[in-house]
Amino acid sequence: MIRSFASPSACLASVFIAASFIAAAAAPTAAASRPRSGGLVDLMPSPAHVRPGDGLFRVDESIVLVRDGAGAAAAEVKDRAFRAGARFMARLAGRTGLFLKQDYLASQAASGPGGIRYAFGEAGRLVPNEDESYTLTVEPASVRLEAKTDLGVLRGFETLLQLLSADEKGYYFPCVTIADAPRFTWRGLLIDVGRHFQPVEVIKRNLDGLAAVKMNVLHLHLTEDQGFRVESKVFPRLHELGSDGMYFTQAQIRDLVAYAADRGIRVVPEFDMPGHSTSWFVAYPEFSSAPGPYAIERHFGIFGPAFNPANERIYPFLDAFFKEMAGLFPDPYLHIGGDEVEGHQWEANPAIRAFKAKRGFADNNALQAYFNERLLKILTKHGKKMVGWDEILQPGLPKDIVIQSWRGPKSLVEAAEKGYQGILSNGYYIDLCQPAAFHYLNDPLPADAPLDERGRSLILGGEATMWAELVTPETIDSRIWPRTAAIAERFWSPAAVRDVDDMYRRLVPTSIALEELGLTHLKNADLILRRLAGGTDVEPLEVLAQAVEPLKGYARHDQADYTSLSPFTRFVDACAPESLPARAFGRTVDAFLAGKDPVAAEELRARLESWRDNHPLVLPLMAASPALREIEPLSLNLARIAGFGIEALDGLTRGEARPAAWIEEKRAVLAEAAKPAAHAELAVVKAIGRLVDASAGTAK
Amino acid sequence: MIRSFASPSACLASVFIAASFIAAAAAPTAAASRPRSGGLVDLMPSPAHVRPGDGLFRVDESIVLVRDGAGAAAAEVKDRAFRAGARFMARLAGRTGLFLKQDYLASQAASGPGGIRYAFGEAGRLVPNEDESYTLTVEPASVRLEAKTDLGVLRGFETLLQLLSADEKGYYFPCVTIADAPRFTWRGLLIDVGRHFQPVEVIKRNLDGLAAVKMNVLHLHLTEDQGFRVESKVFPRLHELGSDGMYFTQAQIRDLVAYAADRGIRVVPEFDMPGHSTSWFVAYPEFSSAPGPYAIERHFGIFGPAFNPANERIYPFLDAFFKEMAGLFPDPYLHIGGDEVEGHQWEANPAIRAFKAKRGFADNNALQAYFNERLLKILTKHGKKMVGWDEILQPGLPKDIVIQSWRGPKSLVEAAEKGYQGILSNGYYIDLCQPAAFHYLNDPLPADAPLDERGRSLILGGEATMWAELVTPETIDSRIWPRTAAIAERFWSPAAVRDVDDMYRRLVPTSIALEELGLTHLKNADLILRRLAGGTDVEPLEVLAQAVEPLKGYARHDQADYTSLSPFTRFVDACAPESLPARAFGRTVDAFLAGKDPVAAEELRARLESWRDNHPLVLPLMAASPALREIEPLSLNLARIAGFGIEALDGLTRGEARPAAWIEEKRAVLAEAAKPAAHAELAVVKAIGRLVDASAGTAK
Repeated sequence: MIRSFASPSACLASVFIAASFIAAAAAPTAAASRPRSGGLVDLMPSPAHVRPGDGLFRVDESIVLVRDGAGAAAAEVKDRAFRAGARFMARLAGRTGLFLKQDYLASQAASGPGGIRYAFGEAGRLVPNEDESYTLTVEPASVRLEAKTDLGVLRGFETLLQLLSADEKGYYFPCVTIADAPRFTWRGLLIDVGRHFQPVEVIKRNLDGLAAVKMNVLHLHLTEDQGFRVESKVFPRLHELGSDGMYFTQAQIRDLVAYAADRGIRVVPEFDMPGHSTSWFVAYPEFSSAPGPYAIERHFGIFGPAFNPANERIYPFLDAFFKEMAGLFPDPYLHIGGDEVEGHQWEANPAIRAFKAKRGFADNNALQAYFNERLLKILTKHGKKMVGWDEILQPGLPKDIVIQSWRGPKSLVEAAEKGYQGILSNGYYIDLCQPAAFHYLNDPLPADAPLDERGRSLILGGEATMWAELVTPETIDSRIWPRTAAIAERFWSPAAVRDVDDMYRRLVPTSIALEELGLTHLKNADLILRRLAGGTDVEPLEVLAQAVEPLKGYARHDQADYTSLSPFTRFVDACAPESLPARAFGRTVDAFLAGKDPVAAEELRARLESWRDNHPLVLPLMAASPALREIEPLSLNLARIAGFGIEALDGLTRGEARPAAWIEEKRAVLAEAAKPAAHAELAVVKAIGRLVDASAGTAK
Repeated sequence: MIRSFASPSACLASVFIAASFIAAAAAPTAAASRPRSGGLVDLMPSPAHVRPGDGLFRVDESIVLVRDGAGAAAAEVKDRAFRAGARFMARLAGRTGLFLKQDYLASQAASGPGGIRYAFGEAGRLVPNEDESYTLTVEPASVRLEAKTDLGVLRGFETLLQLLSADEKGYYFPCVTIADAPRFTWRGLLIDVGRHFQPVEVIKRNLDGLAAVKMNVLHLHLTEDQGFRVESKVFPRLHELGSDGMYFTQAQIRDLVAYAADRGIRVVPEFDMPGHSTSWFVAYPEFSSAPGPYAIERHFGIFGPAFNPANERIYPFLDAFFKEMAGLFPDPYLHIGGDEVEGHQWEANPAIRAFKAKRGFADNNALQAYFNERLLKILTKHGKKMVGWDEILQPGLPKDIVIQSWRGPKSLVEAAEKGYQGILSNGYYIDLCQPAAFHYLNDPLPADAPLDERGRSLILGGEATMWAELVTPETIDSRIWPRTAAIAERFWSPAAVRDVDDMYRRLVPTSIALEELGLTHLKNADLILRRLAGGTDVEPLEVLAQAVEPLKGYARHDQADYTSLSPFTRFVDACAPESLPARAFGRTVDAFLAGKDPVAAEELRARLESWRDNHPLVLPLMAASPALREIEPLSLNLARIAGFGIEALDGLTRGEARPAAWIEEKRAVLAEAAKPAAHAELAVVKAIGRLVDASAGTAK
């Protein structure tokens, strides 16, 4: 719902045009010049409706932020919108270097007309389907941000910051009218703090990142085989024995929940059971399905230990535990996991076999369904609705539970057909190092989904999942950002916003803007390279890293016996999941081969030469640092294929076809260069291959 | 005290040689090759005694960490040494990329001979003059780290990590015997969280940095005119009204104190009074010396508001407050500030004038002495010893207080002559952006200090002071590190370790090693430059930044009306307080002019050409980003003076003297180029000036 304007605006028209249209139309110019002068085309996620105006609102030291509307009488109440306004002004000062004259921490009270004015009707609740819409009107004399709830104001501040532009006179916001609201109400990121613990500051900076791209759910995967990550005052041995000392205290949880709420973000806690639960049994082996003893699991995979549903004593324990956790986490939802029950312990335990027989349970699924029903009663008793992975879907569950699909959109549709709400995570596994475009084009509710209107309304949204086998606090941001901004756009923006090239263009300024929040996705690559090199001269490693990506999917696990204590400080950990320069190289190859871009050949040559000449610069670094020696195949192969990429380019620019034997020989080397090395792979093999193929004179 | 070895070592000789001698002898080779292969000469702070041995201890995946000695019976007790050992192994894995086989988080129990073995006698107390000594013996078959207390083990782990070296076969520790102990017992860093608040994660990563260079005191300056930064449950309006919401909760303070203790670091809290106290009076104007009302101060300087010593009601208030804080901070010392009482409020208040007259107080110093005596009684009642700045020194104070000198070493000597303990901060004001060498050569206890042995024993050490007018969480690390490592060496190492060039050489690997702790001193410069440029291509800005330093001393305050809300995101904030590349350029100029270095001319030419050619690359970045436009004089002047630096170099290499008119013209430009711009200054003007002067043929 879009709240009507307090005062009619000449700029406001009844017909809005889709933001994606404007972005597409303005893209080529903006890409050629600096993104800073093109705030209007850099918006991410793209708003629902954008209507550009004429003129600009100048941003200088005299600008003030003013609270209007229903909250204006209490303008000195330093509530969530006030605090968001203060952060907005601090970030605006940070980006412009302006010494703003207003003391926006002390007062955002009215002081005459003009300025940046915000208003809202009521405080938004942190529940699904709350109103997050806003309108933003930039005119030469004032900026007006209006919303039904303060959540809309928070979302609008982010849009306004993204509008910042510059000309020869200084900074400005371009005149525009934006009417915006999210497509989906559940826009989340799961962070797995079980497999690798992530301390408070990692969670906080990622909460700021989520808020910047208008996400509204942080799903904390708090317990795993590898760690129990939250303090229990009722059962303190859980975190004392199950965490290696790496857990959130309850004070820290309260701090995180408040920090998230201040940014309009819900925190949904997950306690994964009955499987994925080894760390619980270090303290309480008696609740598992085999005698134990248990140690914290260091390896990754699907393990045997599981709660024993046939043991009546587990239910009072879980009752007391969830009572405590229900008090700690205010969100109406609580996630009980439920995925990947390995089953071996259940099958090996005679008492469990007897229990299944007695109850007439045909299989382990039926046993798990029984366990879930018991859990559901406990959660209901403590005022929580249940969320769980696909596996929990079973007949007889109440309709207010939420199914989170890791298996695929089909199971979501099935659930919706039965009347269950769902969120999609399949296709958003950002730990698997797939391209942003792959996630971007994955839609929780495709146009052809076989659902009626009621069914469609049950698809609440989705969650990106940051599973943490292979990340540490040092590297996790680079696995989340900037790709999660593309997912955020899928969840927020109209379904028709699907221009992949435009998304990638906007991802660059978005990524840079995310850095101001303390996110380390860009800056920690050099840190890793400096540590590896033992020095500050790491340019040859940077050049190589931009042509390399980590192995994708689960392939990296085949390269070493990874555990939660393994080092994640190697060259592969400095490589982005998707190299934007490598992608750009591929696009330039395509433009060149299509004959569309006259400067493409020179760009390609410069890049290929830098790769060809890089290997001799890498060699002394490898000689000094044993940890770097594994990159030799990558560096050598990059030099090799870059070398004949240049030969192919030469042939193509001169119009000379290469002989078949040459092509065949190069294809063999390319096949060799495509192989994994140092747990990574060259990301430019296919693009160079296209040059080689084309140089035969047979390709387009 | 050095604990004797559990088993006699053939490697251990009765005569140790000073580490500085080894470092100096090995320096040239190590500087030319990679520092990683020279761990033995990179130690910082330099140990008291180092005796190199033959051979090496190979570091591979099979190495284990083993607890021996008095604690071995309880080897599974996960005490401070155990946790430090786990961090040591994680950092070793991080630096080497090795998948260590030992689960060092679960057990460091003995498993046969060999490995890295540590032992200690007892848990060290976090008080001055506790034993922190250790011996470290690396032999081909084992490493032995032994100490009287676990604090010595912590210090020794840091030394061992610094010893990491590499050869063609992999990583190793060189055989060596080190016997080490600190020169001073109070080795601190003050962080001013009053003027700019620094959240928990900033303090934690700096605690890790302090531990890495063997510092042992964190002095938290918790209250200032600009903010009251700690939660008081007794008087909650203090933090609620005095902090803009930016304060440490008591849970966070306990977490910080425990985190510091785990690293062998004391936390000394400071509550500055009677001046520097505006933020207290926002909640309690009645305790000040003028009616109020008061607002949180945004500007910097020395302000009027001060507690009213004549108001008897302040003492029960302070009694209750310090009782609460004494319970929160376990350190035996509590700092009451006492500096820079402006006095105006006292002089303007008739009741205070009458109080002074009645008591026969000649001046405000006498009034402050009275206030301090009352405070001292309160602190004593709550079990705390008093620390204060110079101004608190007055007749009649007990001898267990500590004077912290910001005025100079003379006042320390005077205090010691009277029997008072002292710590030096004068000369360690790292906020003033002075060179590391300046701080390094500043000694708390110079050889010529006119003190007897008793007097010398009263000089406990010193503290670097990170005053926070001009820093934010984003920039503070770059103001602290790596220069504070040089100060740490002054406090830890023998007085004779004073080789400035060798210190600078070791500062480079030390700085890189500090990054693994999450410190942002290197990586945040690029972040600031990327935000300014609105893009990732910031190399021209990096080139310029390496030739620029922030204005020194208090000169930056003359450039703008700085407040605690000003942006610290400009170009100057990306510049290191001391540019190590600029310093290296100056040393190369000197080497060239002394005719000692045949390759110096080529190095100088390359560097000067990169500066000369940089300005055209900076121009488009400035055009796109108004916040960058202020750097034009810096960029243009650097190009100009680099240009005639090359001319001077040409003349000198060809043996042609430049005419006097040329010299005079260039000196005028150099004088112009030396002027401040963008709150910064070019750091290479003098070095280029030396080339110009020499090219007249008159200089050496």
